[in-house]
Amino acid sequence: MTGSKFQRGKASIAFEEGPQIIGQASVAGKKEGEGPLAAYFDVIEPDPMVGCDNWEAAESALQKEAADLAIEKAGLVRTEVRYLFAGDLLGQLIATSFGTVDLEIPVFGLYGACSTIGEALCLGAMTVEAGYAEYVMAMASSHFASAEKQFRFPLEYGNQRPLSTTWTITGCGSFILGKRGGRVRITGITPGKIVDMGLKDSMNMGACMAPAACDTICRNLEDFGRRPKDYDKIITGDLGEVGQKILLDFVKSRGYEIADRHMDCGIEIFDKESQDTHSGGSGCGCSAIVLAAYILPKLASGEWKRVLFLPTGALLSSTSFNEGQSVPGIAHGVVLEHCSE
Amino acid sequence: MTGSKFQRGKASIAFEEGPQIIGQASVAGKKEGEGPLAAYFDVIEPDPMVGCDNWEAAESALQKEAADLAIEKAGLVRTEVRYLFAGDLLGQLIATSFGTVDLEIPVFGLYGACSTIGEALCLGAMTVEAGYAEYVMAMASSHFASAEKQFRFPLEYGNQRPLSTTWTITGCGSFILGKRGGRVRITGITPGKIVDMGLKDSMNMGACMAPAACDTICRNLEDFGRRPKDYDKIITGDLGEVGQKILLDFVKSRGYEIADRHMDCGIEIFDKESQDTHSGGSGCGCSAIVLAAYILPKLASGEWKRVLFLPTGALLSSTSFNEGQSVPGIAHGVVLEHCSE
Repeated sequence: MTGSKFQRGKASIAFEEGPQIIGQASVAGKKEGEGPLAAYFDVIEPDPMVGCDNWEAAESALQKEAADLAIEKAGLVRTEVRYLFAGDLLGQLIATSFGTVDLEIPVFGLYGACSTIGEALCLGAMTVEAGYAEYVMAMASSHFASAEKQFRFPLEYGNQRPLSTTWTITGCGSFILGKRGGRVRITGITPGKIVDMGLKDSMNMGACMAPAACDTICRNLEDFGRRPKDYDKIITGDLGEVGQKILLDFVKSRGYEIADRHMDCGIEIFDKESQDTHSGGSGCGCSAIVLAAYILPKLASGEWKRVLFLPTGALLSSTSFNEGQSVPGIAHGVVLEHCSE
Repeated sequence: MTGSKFQRGKASIAFEEGPQIIGQASVAGKKEGEGPLAAYFDVIEPDPMVGCDNWEAAESALQKEAADLAIEKAGLVRTEVRYLFAGDLLGQLIATSFGTVDLEIPVFGLYGACSTIGEALCLGAMTVEAGYAEYVMAMASSHFASAEKQFRFPLEYGNQRPLSTTWTITGCGSFILGKRGGRVRITGITPGKIVDMGLKDSMNMGACMAPAACDTICRNLEDFGRRPKDYDKIITGDLGEVGQKILLDFVKSRGYEIADRHMDCGIEIFDKESQDTHSGGSGCGCSAIVLAAYILPKLASGEWKRVLFLPTGALLSSTSFNEGQSVPGIAHGVVLEHCSE
């Protein structure tokens, strides 16, 4: 057990064994399936309604599909997965509640905005490392249309979007963690703090989340006694192009240079020019499907040896926004390493 | 470590040491402070706005107050609390995000509807038992007015409420868990599964949650090889009077008789006759403040030796309700025992 290694004032955990990711699935929407990562996704859903009657049910359908595929790819059956750590962006997590009820797996519902898959991987890894379960699942989803309805305007309104906005991706990423049997290990975590710089622009969430990403990156480097060069890549969730610039400046002001190894899932997932997605992609599903489809295979093959993966979340609701509140950010850090077993 | 004790197909965890609750705080609203448990609460807030400009900020203020008081009562300072497990009922957990940002403690945002404090205690206990942290905090809140606005009608509408409805309580319960130093120990947990019986009445949430409570109670008894008499009390969160009747029938049909030891926080917190609260109290804060104010002292004194505490949640949003979805339930079970240390 690693638990005894904690140090006062530090929030990171270094796992001694390090749970492995033994199966993962990425289910992407049509637009995501027309982007630069199209070839990597397990499934591309051509129908935005996924055969359902409404956007929320469509998102639940993505979860069902990703969950079953991840279990299958891990060579397991549902009853072997002991706990599920899952969430989405919708109020009261309805995509998750209705998407996972048929699994009949005890579930811990999580909300960390677009950082949710980071939160799920942290808790899932803690659970497996401690020996509370042989296998657990971590999952997060988002859907462009359910998110627009939840946070912004009805699609029919056809509102204009400033260039700093990101495009909520349609997709779901699901991961099975176990003690062994994978090619990628979670060797440590740095759970996120809420960071509020007082920014209030819900159309520029990259700027709202960048300070939280900076905080988690710097705490990770300090807690583990590492330099940026100890990571092949430092990969944020969905800062987009605007948020990336701010992050690099913030991190530099703290004494670290990460521009040569920073990557952002939101920037990777769309082709800015041809797909008209402005600052990039976002949503719980964004970092989740990029992790499943693109990042994990590069770690599994050994092309990358060690990556710091940081899904980023902007903590707002339409209520808090309308009441003039700021948009705090949070970023949960997960250290992923190639393993040869 | 207990982890190796897990059995396939069973979701309960028996802790070997069992983290202790070393400090707790209950902050209640005015109406709750006029009910049968008035004398037990740490703080009764006379102002429903808690000095804030809106209901959501008022709920955040309850969280701040409960968090600080629990830390103080545990004899700690903020920086000694390593992780926070917290949630509320509002979309995107805004009461929690804005209520805990000043704590600067890494946070795992949780949503389990009114079962959230059970989810938080499960994860907090797992974290302390595994040695990932010396101290963690579990917290959940609700506010009558922010919940009515979120789930039902504006208060100004003055809508009628059927007798099966419950009254969302205003309050926040906060708990500090540590390895030792308390008089109550968490000796085991039974995380909840989502149970959907197809009920659709959001004005009768007790009925929607009772099947989930039954499922968790029966799984707890089976996983731990216990009979109901092994618990001094089996205490659900907020089934209310209607839900209680259904629960007792359901449990009986599974071969267990618990009527002589069942208690429901939602029934205890209000005086039905004089307070016009129909089926009882509900909300994340309901089971949280009843646990902090009423249940834990009885366990600490040894009046009760072992209790099964089961906060219950109804998984719906106004969106899912309006789309004709059912209201699934979930209940997270926590085994609490008197300890003499």
